[in-house]
Amino acid sequence: MSERRILAIPGPIIFEPHVLRSISIGHLSHMSSEFVWLFAEVLGGLRRLLFVDDDYKVVVLAGSGTLAMEAGVSNFIDKGSRVLVVSNGVFGDRFVELLSQYPVEVDVLKVDEPGEVVSSEKIFSKLSEEDYDLVTVTHVDTSTGVRHPIEELGAFLKDKETLLVVDGVCSVAGEEIRMRDWGIDVVLTGSQKAIGVPPGLAILWLSPKAIEKLDKTKGKCAPYYMNLCRWLSIMRSYENLKPKYFATPAVNLIVGLHESLELIFKEGLEDRFKRHRILAESFRKAMVEIGLKVMAKKEDIAASTVTAVYLPEKVQLSSFLKGMLKRNVVVAGGIYPEIKDRYFRVGHMGPANANDVISIIAAIERTLHDLGLKIQLGSGVGAAQEVLAKHEY
Amino acid sequence: MSERRILAIPGPIIFEPHVLRSISIGHLSHMSSEFVWLFAEVLGGLRRLLFVDDDYKVVVLAGSGTLAMEAGVSNFIDKGSRVLVVSNGVFGDRFVELLSQYPVEVDVLKVDEPGEVVSSEKIFSKLSEEDYDLVTVTHVDTSTGVRHPIEELGAFLKDKETLLVVDGVCSVAGEEIRMRDWGIDVVLTGSQKAIGVPPGLAILWLSPKAIEKLDKTKGKCAPYYMNLCRWLSIMRSYENLKPKYFATPAVNLIVGLHESLELIFKEGLEDRFKRHRILAESFRKAMVEIGLKVMAKKEDIAASTVTAVYLPEKVQLSSFLKGMLKRNVVVAGGIYPEIKDRYFRVGHMGPANANDVISIIAAIERTLHDLGLKIQLGSGVGAAQEVLAKHEY
Amino acid sequence: MSERRILAIPGPIIFEPHVLRSISIGHLSHMSSEFVWLFAEVLGGLRRLLFVDDDYKVVVLAGSGTLAMEAGVSNFIDKGSRVLVVSNGVFGDRFVELLSQYPVEVDVLKVDEPGEVVSSEKIFSKLSEEDYDLVTVTHVDTSTGVRHPIEELGAFLKDKETLLVVDGVCSVAGEEIRMRDWGIDVVLTGSQKAIGVPPGLAILWLSPKAIEKLDKTKGKCAPYYMNLCRWLSIMRSYENLKPKYFATPAVNLIVGLHESLELIFKEGLEDRFKRHRILAESFRKAMVEIGLKVMAKKEDIAASTVTAVYLPEKVQLSSFLKGMLKRNVVVAGGIYPEIKDRYFRVGHMGPANANDVISIIAAIERTLHDLGLKIQLGSGVGAAQEVLAKHEY
Amino acid sequence: MSERRILAIPGPIIFEPHVLRSISIGHLSHMSSEFVWLFAEVLGGLRRLLFVDDDYKVVVLAGSGTLAMEAGVSNFIDKGSRVLVVSNGVFGDRFVELLSQYPVEVDVLKVDEPGEVVSSEKIFSKLSEEDYDLVTVTHVDTSTGVRHPIEELGAFLKDKETLLVVDGVCSVAGEEIRMRDWGIDVVLTGSQKAIGVPPGLAILWLSPKAIEKLDKTKGKCAPYYMNLCRWLSIMRSYENLKPKYFATPAVNLIVGLHESLELIFKEGLEDRFKRHRILAESFRKAMVEIGLKVMAKKEDIAASTVTAVYLPEKVQLSSFLKGMLKRNVVVAGGIYPEIKDRYFRVGHMGPANANDVISIIAAIERTLHDLGLKIQLGSGVGAAQEVLAKHEY
Repeated sequence: MSERRILAIPGPIIFEPHVLRSISIGHLSHMSSEFVWLFAEVLGGLRRLLFVDDDYKVVVLAGSGTLAMEAGVSNFIDKGSRVLVVSNGVFGDRFVELLSQYPVEVDVLKVDEPGEVVSSEKIFSKLSEEDYDLVTVTHVDTSTGVRHPIEELGAFLKDKETLLVVDGVCSVAGEEIRMRDWGIDVVLTGSQKAIGVPPGLAILWLSPKAIEKLDKTKGKCAPYYMNLCRWLSIMRSYENLKPKYFATPAVNLIVGLHESLELIFKEGLEDRFKRHRILAESFRKAMVEIGLKVMAKKEDIAASTVTAVYLPEKVQLSSFLKGMLKRNVVVAGGIYPEIKDRYFRVGHMGPANANDVISIIAAIERTLHDLGLKIQLGSGVGAAQEVLAKHEY
Repeated sequence: MSERRILAIPGPIIFEPHVLRSISIGHLSHMSSEFVWLFAEVLGGLRRLLFVDDDYKVVVLAGSGTLAMEAGVSNFIDKGSRVLVVSNGVFGDRFVELLSQYPVEVDVLKVDEPGEVVSSEKIFSKLSEEDYDLVTVTHVDTSTGVRHPIEELGAFLKDKETLLVVDGVCSVAGEEIRMRDWGIDVVLTGSQKAIGVPPGLAILWLSPKAIEKLDKTKGKCAPYYMNLCRWLSIMRSYENLKPKYFATPAVNLIVGLHESLELIFKEGLEDRFKRHRILAESFRKAMVEIGLKVMAKKEDIAASTVTAVYLPEKVQLSSFLKGMLKRNVVVAGGIYPEIKDRYFRVGHMGPANANDVISIIAAIERTLHDLGLKIQLGSGVGAAQEVLAKHEY
Repeated sequence: MSERRILAIPGPIIFEPHVLRSISIGHLSHMSSEFVWLFAEVLGGLRRLLFVDDDYKVVVLAGSGTLAMEAGVSNFIDKGSRVLVVSNGVFGDRFVELLSQYPVEVDVLKVDEPGEVVSSEKIFSKLSEEDYDLVTVTHVDTSTGVRHPIEELGAFLKDKETLLVVDGVCSVAGEEIRMRDWGIDVVLTGSQKAIGVPPGLAILWLSPKAIEKLDKTKGKCAPYYMNLCRWLSIMRSYENLKPKYFATPAVNLIVGLHESLELIFKEGLEDRFKRHRILAESFRKAMVEIGLKVMAKKEDIAASTVTAVYLPEKVQLSSFLKGMLKRNVVVAGGIYPEIKDRYFRVGHMGPANANDVISIIAAIERTLHDLGLKIQLGSGVGAAQEVLAKHEY
Repeated sequence: MSERRILAIPGPIIFEPHVLRSISIGHLSHMSSEFVWLFAEVLGGLRRLLFVDDDYKVVVLAGSGTLAMEAGVSNFIDKGSRVLVVSNGVFGDRFVELLSQYPVEVDVLKVDEPGEVVSSEKIFSKLSEEDYDLVTVTHVDTSTGVRHPIEELGAFLKDKETLLVVDGVCSVAGEEIRMRDWGIDVVLTGSQKAIGVPPGLAILWLSPKAIEKLDKTKGKCAPYYMNLCRWLSIMRSYENLKPKYFATPAVNLIVGLHESLELIFKEGLEDRFKRHRILAESFRKAMVEIGLKVMAKKEDIAASTVTAVYLPEKVQLSSFLKGMLKRNVVVAGGIYPEIKDRYFRVGHMGPANANDVISIIAAIERTLHDLGLKIQLGSGVGAAQEVLAKHEY
């Protein structure tokens, strides 16, 4: 099959050819002055991405987003710590499973149905009742395509001791996150989503409050490899343009991250977030127009990076995915338990553009048509075009 | 601008990422056994592409399609030779200009209007009246998007002495050419079109009749660099797995050609030509649906590789091109004299797929809409979808 | 500085251009059938690399070698487990530090001086005295360039319950490891060393005995991300050609691993190990010839992948490294505490060939000469040439 | 065989990985503003390479060095023009063969023996006796590794009408050429030599005197594709940042040229020429030390880019080349008629560095040793090291 198919799953995503070429670099030592400069620039760029300054620290590790999740909580707990997990879907639940390996008490606030987010009222009420050391929340839950209003949660916790840990795996670089203004203490992500680099990097941002906490915990509950005390000292050294070794960094992927960040800032953060919003809106409008139901229950919690869509009753997921693949579009099946065969997910983030979204919609139209549904071909695209045209896209 | 824009000009086209990566190879001597094997396979593959066997010879030169044109005629003429040029557009005329540097007599049969092809009757009548050593014809004239019925011309000349030279620059690997069955003596092309390799290779196929002629002319009218006697001996040597030097071949691009041919045969020639036909038809249907006029005057002479479309009266070419570029689609302006600012050209060949064509159409819709035209957004795409869906694309 | 410099540190190493190009692939879903096939082949190839069959399991994780170390021990312990660490240098000691985060009892047998390995007698005696659940040993300690005779240790433990965990970060694919015959239970490595893939993959092999142990521990002491029960089920699924998701694999690096393994088997394991031995021997002979002292105290414990060499007294490490860099050769400084500024380390593994080794030696000669030492230029190279010539290299 | 072998033939050469990666770019139209900028920078850089300003013009064509040779003479002749060919070897003779296709009178001054250059006295005497429209000379004849003192010839012709055409295929970017100061009118080269770009580009520089001549001839003797009047207008347009079409440029290779020029100027021309001189000298010293004879008869005419070396009597070329290949070094056989099996050629240009030269020498030592010659291993390298060390290389 052609490499020209559109990879529209929620990660790994379509990557910029320039970024892909850049990771082919060889002969680059992690201790070389070239790499040191480049890594220091990467760390600076990552801060800029979340609108924070030098008092916030960034760590880049070889590993996946799940590793970032584990590092993002295990470093900030002590034996007996109390954690509140706000779960809007599979990746919220993952924190519960993950934390069950740690000697902490975990409470969970979970949505009643997929497509919702736990209401801020419910969370605030819980937080008023009980003391927590840590609150975790998934900014965009990839399993349902909802976006949590983390800014509300952040505002609530800002002056409290409780740390707010945001899983930004499916949001960073696609959704706006103003880490400082919004009062967030830990943000974590993986490279293969909206940040636009092949999978293999786990990235974490820490607020001064998080760093203070780390000074106390010393990360002693965290796995050896994920101890952020150790890593902060490594990162600090690179930022001071001195290489320092703990474990070999994924040099080539970090080069890719450097190039991707450069492209991100060339586009401009505002324009980038706007593009994600418009693409997502046009995609949702198209789905509705052709008679499909978007999982996110309200527009204001629908993510800009990924959309989950219910399949028509009589359409089997496997036939649908196969039909899409035949049309050179790769979308993902569901992963929310119980209903995972009843919906599909489309990623539209990173370098995704209007051409991709239009092609995906058109392929959905033809696939469903081919599977016997009555679809007015072009209607979904038309609805998307209206949104795009309104914004002169 | 993102490298992810759709390059929809009639060459260079969108290339397969795999082909692009392959040309980055280093450290490959043109005299090495690896290259010899690879080049021999390329020569074999090129024959297969035109449905011919070992009695037909292929030559691959560093140079552009124009160089292929010059090599394709200059080798088969003597002082005083008579050449009939069948011209359906700019690239037909180019043969006239080119031949004016050679000591030959040139007659031209030219279309009255862009979008037509010279009728076979007219050509046969001319050929019956006068003797020609050479007839040249452009299979697909990139300037107007028409395809000449070369099989009719070939059938007519099959048992005559006259050589039929077909400029396949914009057709080889996108349009069917059965070189032997159709009685064609010389086919020439460039790498950057439907054959799917970055620009820089000129490729020629010679029939036994052409080779016989070359034995007589010795290519003495041809430029030194383009003398096919010299090159045939080089190619023969490579096919016998012995490297031989005349001028350094464009090693990296030939590696790309090897990979592209592999992908072409993996798809299958029948499927490939069918894909080109369907994409072209869907594109034309879309243009008509949104009220634009395709230049090719009849469906059966409309090329499968490139389409020329008249702009609405009030739309300026430069604004249109700019609007398309903003939407990450690169199309070409006109090049047919007098009307070159009144139409645009879209290439849909090589690895182009339905997703590309849909995106291009949608971008045309939005661009025209943005320029103030009344376009029902989605209507062009809908018409294209009908064609695609009919073929289960 | 040119990318053509020789990267002669003990990882990341020089990579094959073909492997580097391969990781630039885009548009490859970790759930696609192409990736599934490729990953299944990778897992099979990795077994072959250590001479084992299907009853041994392999796990490939996004992460560094240090992560592999942590996964390699944490999964096989219970609260109160007893671990014997055999330490020949910094990476042996790292196990001690790492295990200090776990609720286990650790005993250490450590070399008296850098350049030695702990004698088998000493280890056997300790193992006879006390019961251990786990013994860890570093096959090649990158800090000193010694190779432990792990086959002796394996033979001793073969029929006992104690698991033998071998850190093969600096040996796998460069030094022979017959995992089954030698009675080894866990081997772990990283991608950026002799296996020849840019950094970012952690790889582990488990023997049936290790798997049995894992069935008991359930990996409950291991970090969530490193729990091998979870990962074995993912790997099993891929081997059965069904994709399964736990955490996004580092798709691009795994593609690189696929290509690197292909090159490794094309060379042949015997030839590969022999090449490493000869290159290492020629390098050591050269060092001795120019008057430098190799750290490894005996030839039979000198590693084939990396060599540590003491600097002459009056030469400063920083000047030496700078001089080498100027000559386009990147070597590493020391990392063994106390003496880290008194020696340098040279990696000669993976695709390294005689040309690299000769160039490195010649650059050492010129650098030392330039720093004022009396060096007979060419003498070191001559000594190396003798070794190479003896083997018709 | 590994791509890591050293490609030490006189073109294609070793390329910088960065340049190789850059040519993998896709989706770049030759009419796009990005390409226009890049091409304009290339044309400017090429001027700088020969120390000339805007009154000198540069043309970049898709084609090989031989095409550049043909374009370089055919544009400046009229019927009956008189040409003096100064031939120091095979590539001098090629001008004679090439010109035999043109209606001109050709006189030849040829060396008596390979390894010599025609003396300036002899040339001046000939030029004083007779009037010539054109004098051609090969700066470095790749067949014998000699460098002609073109500055003497230029000085002699400076104020005369005769045009001086210099074949710089094997010298540009490796040997100093001060086109204006030295009075040279046409310089031509190919991309795959010291300029460091994969084969496929022919490059020509024209002095004001050459342009004046072209205004008269109109290039009417030149092949259509090579007519420089046509191309100068295209190049002028690109330099004015307006794309203009005649024949599709080899976009990807031009991108490579852009990157290579950037690296060239980063090194600095003086340093670059010095590096070539030192590498060449060290290589020759090594050859002499191990008892081989360099073809160039005097040091001051020995080229810095390529060296031809006689094989010992009893060594067969094919065995020698095979032995070198086994050692991952690719050198070229001879091409000078009569003696082509009695010598070999080594290219040491472009990104070649001391490491390459040392490796090549060492491989020659081991190969000859393996073929039964008495070689003191390391002695050749030692001699080369002395030269390198003297210059602190």
